[in-house]
Amino acid sequence: MPMYVVGHKIPDSDSICGAIALAYLKNQIGEPAVAARLGEPSPETAFILERFGFEAPELKLSYAGEEVYIVDHSELTQAPDDIAEATIVGIVDHHKLGDLTTSTPLECWIRPVGCSNTVIKMMYDFHGVEIPKEIAGIMMCAILSDTVIFKSPTCTTADIRCVEDLAKIAGIEDYEALGLEMFNVKSAVAGTPIRDLVMRDYKDFNMNGNLVGIGQLEVVDLSVFDDIKSELEADIATLKAEGERHTVMLLLTDIMKEGSELLVISDDVSVVERAYGKETENGRVWLDGVLSRKKQVVPPLQDAFA
Amino acid sequence: MPMYVVGHKIPDSDSICGAIALAYLKNQIGEPAVAARLGEPSPETAFILERFGFEAPELKLSYAGEEVYIVDHSELTQAPDDIAEATIVGIVDHHKLGDLTTSTPLECWIRPVGCSNTVIKMMYDFHGVEIPKEIAGIMMCAILSDTVIFKSPTCTTADIRCVEDLAKIAGIEDYEALGLEMFNVKSAVAGTPIRDLVMRDYKDFNMNGNLVGIGQLEVVDLSVFDDIKSELEADIATLKAEGERHTVMLLLTDIMKEGSELLVISDDVSVVERAYGKETENGRVWLDGVLSRKKQVVPPLQDAFA
Repeated sequence: MPMYVVGHKIPDSDSICGAIALAYLKNQIGEPAVAARLGEPSPETAFILERFGFEAPELKLSYAGEEVYIVDHSELTQAPDDIAEATIVGIVDHHKLGDLTTSTPLECWIRPVGCSNTVIKMMYDFHGVEIPKEIAGIMMCAILSDTVIFKSPTCTTADIRCVEDLAKIAGIEDYEALGLEMFNVKSAVAGTPIRDLVMRDYKDFNMNGNLVGIGQLEVVDLSVFDDIKSELEADIATLKAEGERHTVMLLLTDIMKEGSELLVISDDVSVVERAYGKETENGRVWLDGVLSRKKQVVPPLQDAFA
Repeated sequence: MPMYVVGHKIPDSDSICGAIALAYLKNQIGEPAVAARLGEPSPETAFILERFGFEAPELKLSYAGEEVYIVDHSELTQAPDDIAEATIVGIVDHHKLGDLTTSTPLECWIRPVGCSNTVIKMMYDFHGVEIPKEIAGIMMCAILSDTVIFKSPTCTTADIRCVEDLAKIAGIEDYEALGLEMFNVKSAVAGTPIRDLVMRDYKDFNMNGNLVGIGQLEVVDLSVFDDIKSELEADIATLKAEGERHTVMLLLTDIMKEGSELLVISDDVSVVERAYGKETENGRVWLDGVLSRKKQVVPPLQDAFA
């Protein structure tokens, strides 16, 4: 029986490309593996898969009785609903250590770098397995996405070196141009249902017993939101009520101006204001220099809840 | 400010030797680190340190405000009491994934192998750092201890290859003889206070909300316990009451006969009997082939509690 390799709920490019890349590696070293996903690929991910000739991995929501290799998180809220009935055989990730636990020994490849695919590249190198051209392409795009083409404070020299190596393997001469093309795809919000936008890159966190949802939309120009900002706010309020969440936030990130407008709906907005040291105005606040949910948004909020 | 590298409470040889070996590696790659320990070295560990000319690492119980690299566990109950006030920068381990969490990204080197020092050897190889002769010696002994000289079911080919490599670096021709010498030191129980024996290799686990303590004494001949078995039983009963534990067990492991006698004091001994599929008699049961707490004792009990 093969193991399933699967990323988090509401998968981003790192989760989907990472599952494909890691499943290939595992098969090469004699451990049968199948890539899977917990949700629909985003337009950005669809662009990457199309560009390098991949189908999306199998949509699979239930893993009871299966062996599972977890990609890009270690949080119960982001894992398959029935993960407690599965056997987690491994985790590859680059986030804080979450609340997943196991009853048997496993492998964890977790590094404080910008992208899980950078860690998966280390796994290929450790096992001495050659990365096929097309897989190098999707891994490279995942890293460019997670690091906002190296602009994010989460980006490390390991990520940059990794992209350079992968670009060579993939035969991509101008990876920055491909990265910008990808972010332009990501910036297209017109015509997309509001809930789809809110959920495009959305994660729930357990913060000291409080359920906190944080979505993020990265675009090349924030003006694309001018006409729909109040609709977005109405929808995160609905989302908060639906899930009995303490707080729902949506980060509107301008990757060229290098900052984010934060939209907040909360039972206690003072926790959020304490976390970032800035007052909100009608549930909105500009956070200069903030590009990374993982490094700049989650930790201060977690500390404010602690 | 240097990071502290520290193993679990009631440190075994893997925790102490691993802290020394990893702190050395970190210093070599430009990350200042100091080895520390949460308790007294066991006679076995003292033998290893003496054999290769090391002092025990610094005894340090409080880590508030410090950066900490955790060795050989990922469990709150086995970590420093104030670990929540420290920053965990990394974990190297070979056990099931426990309930430690972090609020910032970290590195985790966790592998399903027989010993944390086998993983630390992988870290040396990854960074291309040469292992000094004496450090190779203590790492090798830690692996021989954790794998019961390769007899434990936790032992993997990676552990065996690692010991062979380390023995060459350390200049040890007959590592099995050194291993047996070490286990003979470990088998000397005469004259040791009963509580010291019970606690020599003891760990508390949180099993579905129940505090469960499991100690283990590995000897080359179980007859050394003939005169003190009832004293050991009386003491684990006291230990159970002191800590409001649900269950306390002591594994008396015969490494030559390759099995363990289990002494049990429990609020509900049927959980233990269900876990191992055998009835206890006056709180005792022989478990044939059982050498490993981690692989053969903890997981079935955890499942029985779930």
